[in-house]
Amino acid sequence: MLPIVDQVRHKIGLEKLQKMGPTAQTAIKKDLAGISPDMARYAIEATCGDIYSRPGLDPKYREMIAIAALTTLGFALPQLKIHVEAALEGGCTRSEIEEIIIQMSVYIGWPAAFNAMSAANEVFESRSS
Amino acid sequence: MLPIVDQVRHKIGLEKLQKMGPTAQTAIKKDLAGISPDMARYAIEATCGDIYSRPGLDPKYREMIAIAALTTLGFALPQLKIHVEAALEGGCTRSEIEEIIIQMSVYIGWPAAFNAMSAANEVFESRSS
Amino acid sequence: MLPIVDQVRHKIGLEKLQKMGPTAQTAIKKDLAGISPDMARYAIEATCGDIYSRPGLDPKYREMIAIAALTTLGFALPQLKIHVEAALEGGCTRSEIEEIIIQMSVYIGWPAAFNAMSAANEVFESRSS
Amino acid sequence: MLPIVDQVRHKIGLEKLQKMGPTAQTAIKKDLAGISPDMARYAIEATCGDIYSRPGLDPKYREMIAIAALTTLGFALPQLKIHVEAALEGGCTRSEIEEIIIQMSVYIGWPAAFNAMSAANEVFESRSS
Amino acid sequence: MLPIVDQVRHKIGLEKLQKMGPTAQTAIKKDLAGISPDMARYAIEATCGDIYSRPGLDPKYREMIAIAALTTLGFALPQLKIHVEAALEGGCTRSEIEEIIIQMSVYIGWPAAFNAMSAANEVFESRSS
Amino acid sequence: MLPIVDQVRHKIGLEKLQKMGPTAQTAIKKDLAGISPDMARYAIEATCGDIYSRPGLDPKYREMIAIAALTTLGFALPQLKIHVEAALEGGCTRSEIEEIIIQMSVYIGWPAAFNAMSAANEVFESRSS
Repeated sequence: MLPIVDQVRHKIGLEKLQKMGPTAQTAIKKDLAGISPDMARYAIEATCGDIYSRPGLDPKYREMIAIAALTTLGFALPQLKIHVEAALEGGCTRSEIEEIIIQMSVYIGWPAAFNAMSAANEVFESRSS
Repeated sequence: MLPIVDQVRHKIGLEKLQKMGPTAQTAIKKDLAGISPDMARYAIEATCGDIYSRPGLDPKYREMIAIAALTTLGFALPQLKIHVEAALEGGCTRSEIEEIIIQMSVYIGWPAAFNAMSAANEVFESRSS
Repeated sequence: MLPIVDQVRHKIGLEKLQKMGPTAQTAIKKDLAGISPDMARYAIEATCGDIYSRPGLDPKYREMIAIAALTTLGFALPQLKIHVEAALEGGCTRSEIEEIIIQMSVYIGWPAAFNAMSAANEVFESRSS
Repeated sequence: MLPIVDQVRHKIGLEKLQKMGPTAQTAIKKDLAGISPDMARYAIEATCGDIYSRPGLDPKYREMIAIAALTTLGFALPQLKIHVEAALEGGCTRSEIEEIIIQMSVYIGWPAAFNAMSAANEVFESRSS
Repeated sequence: MLPIVDQVRHKIGLEKLQKMGPTAQTAIKKDLAGISPDMARYAIEATCGDIYSRPGLDPKYREMIAIAALTTLGFALPQLKIHVEAALEGGCTRSEIEEIIIQMSVYIGWPAAFNAMSAANEVFESRSS
Repeated sequence: MLPIVDQVRHKIGLEKLQKMGPTAQTAIKKDLAGISPDMARYAIEATCGDIYSRPGLDPKYREMIAIAALTTLGFALPQLKIHVEAALEGGCTRSEIEEIIIQMSVYIGWPAAFNAMSAANEVFESRSS
């Protein structure tokens, strides 16, 4: 059994995760939990519960900076797609996401920005069909 | 002599650069221009003139995603400090910048986030003294 | 309508892009332009038009350093394959490209060098068949 | 013909490579040797022969730090899978490998750790079936 | 006031932090806490309390894989020095740390390994004087 | 005593190292050898002896791709400065080195390119005074 306060963090984390859309939920609660339940628990409690739920920044802007960071990493395209979906769920427009990725080219060069734009487009297309 | 439209881009870029604060201006117009005038020109025209001046995203949010990207790179602390200053000039609060860097730990781990927070704090302190 | 001088840069960029071979052209003019026309325009004007067309370095050596950079990034295998093709179009031999990637192992380790050699080999094989 | 001492290093390297399991052997002796025989030779002599065969660290711990490094790189999932197999061959448990990858999240963030856990799981599943 | 269970995690984290040596404690409890108390709290509770205190891996090996990861990042030399000290406090020998860093050159190349060896040596020298 | 063929590789490596200029020699034969003699030996034999001495690429172009790779890494400024010196010793001009670094901005963004240009300039200035 999880300790009391972790259950609070777990509950807050699950609520936050639900707002991020179905891809995030499948990735954490089904895929990752099926491989490493402890890692899934940290993702829910420490990432969604503690950090994403901090009050100091609007959830929409949290998704925008997530897209910036995941584009910058270069290799994190599965996570980028999760946060593009979460950004759209949270009120970002497709055009704003395109702007973020275009601006990233300044800091990280064109290859990572190209690959990110292509991954984001897969999310856009999957939602418009 | 620069070609006509590049002078337009140059002028737009310089106006944008001026709004980013004195550290950005010294870095591009004095330090970089003294080493490689062509590179300084690209920084002004292509980065500040073309991309930072695109209308699709509020300048404040452009600085927030810049901080996210530069924190993620890990090695770009001089540029991070320039954009922390630009973010403060553009209306971000110290608390919002702290939130961005804390959230970055999720995507990039604690070492890069620690070093970024320490660099950002140098900017905060230099402005409060 | 694009402004006058950007049309000059656009024309120079398209000429440079054409010399890079069919994969580069498809990637920028078809794939990227279909997703983000503005990003495709920057790729043509700022990357191919401004930087690749600078006179200070022979195009063959520009492709060699592109291969070095893209191998080093580790995650940029689609772009590496474009520049391996462009290097072969521009007069590099398969053996020179192999030498570049072997040397990269010194600076970036074997995993990135292995994956780059494997990606380069896909280009070699697609052209010999 | 290889020079005498290189044959010694080659022999030591091949013995070490054999202990790493079938995936490592296929990757180096078949795949890489088919593309770039010189690169395969360096991998066998310099990596397996010289460094992995140094006496100062138990082979099991050499595999543990390999998993840490390859998880950290983010883009090196094929090599990570080779070393997960080698770690299991060398006496690491599945649980220890899971612990390593969970700990990596502290230094490199969750996306790289997630992708590494998923790649490691593919190795675990391929051996349990 | 912190919630009950967070106080438990905080206490476990502080105990773990104390075993890592004086540099780690100064970095977290004085330097970071002076800049961002919330980030210091996460470092103590989530990193030291949750992850470093997991039972599945001997603390000595946790420090060895930390050195591998921080060497691989390339830019994380301040954190590398903290964990070199923690490794020595936890029973690693100078020779084992040297072996880890030499082996890292295989995965990440020589520049990051050189800079890590130089940083580790600063810790060795500060303790032998 | 080193084995026979390693003495051959060592001799070839030392000859190559000497052509790279005084900074490279101090870094390997004095600084690194004083910290980790084995690592210095690998640097001389495996890097300078084996790879830099391969015949398939002109030494001047080997230095150009080294500058490309070390600029791309972002954190490897000490090594970049060594290879900028080696490039100048090997017949590259200051202008060619500036071109390489400007082109790198396409693949890696401006922060790493800026920091590399600044480091290269330190080498240029130290040689002109």
